[in-house]
Amino acid sequence: MTAEQQLVDAALRTWKSNADRVEKFFQPLSEEQLQQEIAPGRNRLIYLWGHLASVSDGLFPLLGIGPRLHPELDAMFVTNPDRAATALPSATELQDIAAEIDRELWRVFSQWSATDWLAKHTAVSDDEFVREPHRNRFSVLLSRTAHMAFHYGQAILVKPRS
Amino acid sequence: MTAEQQLVDAALRTWKSNADRVEKFFQPLSEEQLQQEIAPGRNRLIYLWGHLASVSDGLFPLLGIGPRLHPELDAMFVTNPDRAATALPSATELQDIAAEIDRELWRVFSQWSATDWLAKHTAVSDDEFVREPHRNRFSVLLSRTAHMAFHYGQAILVKPRS
Repeated sequence: MTAEQQLVDAALRTWKSNADRVEKFFQPLSEEQLQQEIAPGRNRLIYLWGHLASVSDGLFPLLGIGPRLHPELDAMFVTNPDRAATALPSATELQDIAAEIDRELWRVFSQWSATDWLAKHTAVSDDEFVREPHRNRFSVLLSRTAHMAFHYGQAILVKPRS
Repeated sequence: MTAEQQLVDAALRTWKSNADRVEKFFQPLSEEQLQQEIAPGRNRLIYLWGHLASVSDGLFPLLGIGPRLHPELDAMFVTNPDRAATALPSATELQDIAAEIDRELWRVFSQWSATDWLAKHTAVSDDEFVREPHRNRFSVLLSRTAHMAFHYGQAILVKPRS
């Protein structure tokens, strides 16, 4: 592997290990367990999970891969706070949705070269990118990895009831 | 900048923005505010802050930079749970300690080349590193960035009392 490939490989491993621990934590939870709050009066687990899935789903357009797979998640889990949406996906539905998003992203991520990763993301104009070349896909990958860890740290404060 | 340098630059920016938001959150807190728990019966803010500082301090030996600046933090904030240590640094002491560790790490980090980052860390033997070249300093940087984000997500659940 070249140095470039090794640097990308390290970032992909960190993404993957964070995505995997999120999935491992949330996937087994029941409908009832997902209703638990991370702290009194704070977000419920189902909101955190849907939020992570929706933000990951937003990577398809942001990284120029294609349209979102589940645009309906945004209003439920990102643009509105927890408890604002009247209907949320069931635990089983969210299991499938989250796994699908993770799987499809990983299929693309694992094939991209360093050059692909250093291309601009779609929220930056060509002009801006000349001045600010650090606004690339790789930066998005790293900041979204930190975003996953941020909410995972909150989620595991809940001790799931059996 | 070469592709290698751009990839390293992105990782350093993500480290720095996470380190900065941790510092910005904790530095202004009073002794009393640091006693608050992130959730009922869970770690206090002072423990999270000392924990982050101590884990960062451990990067000096782990990345082969030199000895720890504050080895005394380990027993207080890493190897033992919160409330096990009888004496902890004061808020003012921890402000200085955390800022010093961040500053000294950054001085080294900001000078390293891609080759420096891809060198092995000191917890891997030469033999292991041949088989597992992904166990490099860069991987440590990325996983510790996620570690900061993980605990930062917990810390901000506390609404500091004025």
